[in-house]
Amino acid sequence: MSHIDRSIDPAFPLHQGGKIEVRPTVRIRDREGLALAYTPGVARVSSAIALDPALVYDYTWKSNTVLVVTDGTAVLGLGDIGPEAALPVMEGKALLFKEFGGVDAVPICLATKDVEEIIETVVRIAPAYGGINLEDISAPRCFEIENRLDALLDIPVFHDDQHGTAIVVLAALLNAARVTGRTLADVRAVVSGAGAAGVAVTNILLEAGIGDIAVGDSRGIINSSRDDLTVVKADIAARTNRLDLEGSIEEAMVGADVFIGLSAGTISDAAVASMAPGAIVFALANPDPEVHPDIARRTAAVVATGRSDFPNQINNVLAFPGIFRGALDVRASTITEGMKLAAAQAIADVVGDDLAPDLIVPSVFDRRVGLAVPRAVAEAARADGVARI
Amino acid sequence: MSHIDRSIDPAFPLHQGGKIEVRPTVRIRDREGLALAYTPGVARVSSAIALDPALVYDYTWKSNTVLVVTDGTAVLGLGDIGPEAALPVMEGKALLFKEFGGVDAVPICLATKDVEEIIETVVRIAPAYGGINLEDISAPRCFEIENRLDALLDIPVFHDDQHGTAIVVLAALLNAARVTGRTLADVRAVVSGAGAAGVAVTNILLEAGIGDIAVGDSRGIINSSRDDLTVVKADIAARTNRLDLEGSIEEAMVGADVFIGLSAGTISDAAVASMAPGAIVFALANPDPEVHPDIARRTAAVVATGRSDFPNQINNVLAFPGIFRGALDVRASTITEGMKLAAAQAIADVVGDDLAPDLIVPSVFDRRVGLAVPRAVAEAARADGVARI
Repeated sequence: MSHIDRSIDPAFPLHQGGKIEVRPTVRIRDREGLALAYTPGVARVSSAIALDPALVYDYTWKSNTVLVVTDGTAVLGLGDIGPEAALPVMEGKALLFKEFGGVDAVPICLATKDVEEIIETVVRIAPAYGGINLEDISAPRCFEIENRLDALLDIPVFHDDQHGTAIVVLAALLNAARVTGRTLADVRAVVSGAGAAGVAVTNILLEAGIGDIAVGDSRGIINSSRDDLTVVKADIAARTNRLDLEGSIEEAMVGADVFIGLSAGTISDAAVASMAPGAIVFALANPDPEVHPDIARRTAAVVATGRSDFPNQINNVLAFPGIFRGALDVRASTITEGMKLAAAQAIADVVGDDLAPDLIVPSVFDRRVGLAVPRAVAEAARADGVARI
Repeated sequence: MSHIDRSIDPAFPLHQGGKIEVRPTVRIRDREGLALAYTPGVARVSSAIALDPALVYDYTWKSNTVLVVTDGTAVLGLGDIGPEAALPVMEGKALLFKEFGGVDAVPICLATKDVEEIIETVVRIAPAYGGINLEDISAPRCFEIENRLDALLDIPVFHDDQHGTAIVVLAALLNAARVTGRTLADVRAVVSGAGAAGVAVTNILLEAGIGDIAVGDSRGIINSSRDDLTVVKADIAARTNRLDLEGSIEEAMVGADVFIGLSAGTISDAAVASMAPGAIVFALANPDPEVHPDIARRTAAVVATGRSDFPNQINNVLAFPGIFRGALDVRASTITEGMKLAAAQAIADVVGDDLAPDLIVPSVFDRRVGLAVPRAVAEAARADGVARI
C-alpha cells in the first residue's frame, strides 16, 4: 500500500468529503411549510402510520431505500480492512444505486464481525428501510447471515457479492453459449473459487439448467470423497461434478466448455488451450484476471473479465440497482430465485442482435438495462407471489 | 386519531414518498469516472484509510453526517407509537438538519426498546457517522442511553429532546431576564415536568447560574423529603429547591420570577397572577400550552410557547443544526456543557438590539442563527479541548 501517493492520485480529490449526501425532497420556505413537514403536521402522518403500519410505504422514504451493510471483512480484493476503510466502497455502492436504479442507499459499516451480532443489529435497524444489501462480508459467514436475515425480515435481503455476480455471470454465459452455438444444457463448466461468488454462481447455473459444473477451491476440485468440506462445500459436492472429477482445477478444464474464475489464482495458457473447441473463459479475478485475456483469446472463442479496459466486462452494477428497483417497485418481501433468473435473462436480452464474441453483456452505461431489469424482476416477484402491490 | 382525513389534510401529499433522499455528490459520466469513484480507484482510498484511520474524515461523508436514532417510545406528544410511525418525524429532523445546518442526517428507527440493545446497536453502526442525535426516546431510559453512548463513542452524542430544548430555553431566558431588568442569578424559577426536557432544562439553568429552581412532577414539587424519587429525581432534589418548597407546582409559583412548563399539565390564570411582578412564563407544552398565552400575558411581562402562531416560539431547530454543524466542523469528540452554554448565548445574542417582550428568541428562519451557533460551538469545543482540528 506504500505506493499510494495521495498528492497525484485523482481518486483522492474525487473522494474528498465523501461521495453521497442526504437531501430534502421537500422545501421548507416558511412557517406554514415547517408546520406541515414537521410539527404539528408530521404528527398526523405519524398517527396515521401508527394506526395502519402499511402506510409507512406511502408516507416515508422506506419505499425507496436500502441499507448497504458491511462488516469490512472482504472488501474488494483488500480483505479484512475494517468498517471505516470499507466506507468509501459502500458510498460508491450507494452512488451507483442512485445513479443506475434511482434507489436511496445508506451505508452501514459495522463495528462487529460476530455473526449473531450482525444479524440482530440489522434486524433492529431495518424498520426505516425497504431492503438490505449485504456487501463485502467474508465467506462462509455471509451465507448464514443472508439466509437468516431473509427469514427474519419481511423486506428483500441480497448479498451482492454472491447474487449480483451470479446474475451477471449467468447473463454473460447465456449469450456466450448462444454466440458459440450451445444451449446451457450442453455446457460443462469449471468454476474456480468456492467463496461467496463461487457458491452463488454455481447455484444460479444449476438453477438455470447447466449441463454440469466442477467447482474447485484452493485444494482442488470439490467432490464427495473429500473429507475437508464445510457444510456449504459438502452441499456443492452433492449437486455438482457428475463426472466425479478429482485433482486440480487445470485437470478439470481439459475438454470443458466453460471456465469461470472467481478466485485470485492463475490459470496457464496450456489449460485454456486444453478446453473444448469454442471455449468460453470468464477470468473475473480483479485487478489481475486468472489468465490474461489476450492469451486466453488465442484459443478461446469468448473471453470476459471484470475489468473495464477489456471487452465483456462482468460488472455487478448491471444487476444490483435494477434488482432492488424492481423489488422496491412491487414492495417485494424477498428476492426469489425466479427474480434473479429473470434479471439475468433481461440483462442478456438487452444485447439482442448486437451479440458478438466481444459483446456478450451490455455496457454498464446502456440505459436499457435500467429499464429492462426492474421490469423483469417486478414481473417475476408477482409471478412468485412475493409482491405486495 | 380517527379525526385524521388523509384526503383533505395537506400534510399527507407533502409526505408522499418521504421527505429526504440520498444523492451522489460526484457524477459518474463514463468508465473513467466509474474507475475512480468505484473499483479500482476506490480501493486506493480504502487502503489509505486502512493505513491511517483518521483519513476517514477526509475521504468519506463521516465528517458531515449524523445518525438520528429513535426507538419510537416518546414521539412528539404521541407517546410510544413504534419505529415505523416515528419515521416521518425522523425524516423531518433530517430535513431540518440539512436545511438549517448543512448536516447529512440518516434516520434509524429501532425495532427494540431495550436499553442495552439500543446502546450496543448504536455502537455497532456508528463507524460511518460523525455524530449521534438521539430523538424521542422516553425518560428515564434516555438519560442512561445518552450517558453511556457518550462514554463509549468518540463522536458527539446529543439527545435533542433534552439538550436542544434546554439550550433554546436558556437562550430565551437570558433575553427574558434582560428585557425585564434581571440577571439570571436574581431569578427563582419553577419548572413543571421532570422528564427528558425538564431535567435538561434544570441542569443547564443551574450550570448558567440561575438563582434557584423548584422542579415539579406529577406528584408536586421535588424535594429531598420525598420517598418516591428515582435516581435522577433524587439528584435534582439535591441540587435545587433551596427554599425547600413542598406541595403543588401552583403553590411554588407564588412569588416566583419564572415558570417553565414542559409537561402536559395546565396552570390556572390565578397561579400566573400570583407570580412576582414582571413575571416570565414559558408554557411549552405542545400543541396545548399549560396556560393560554393571551391569558398569561394579562399579568406576565414575557410569555413564550412552543407554537409558531404566537410570538416567542421556543423551537429546537434554533439549536440542533448549529450544534452539530459546529461540532462536526472541528471534529469534536463529544458535546460539552460549555458548547451548550455557548450555543444558548449565541442564539440569545442574535436578537441583539431588537430585544422586546415579544421578541426574546430569533425566528427559526433568521439565517444569522445558522452562522452564529456553529461558530460559538466550535470555539467552545476548542476551549474545552474536545476539538480534533
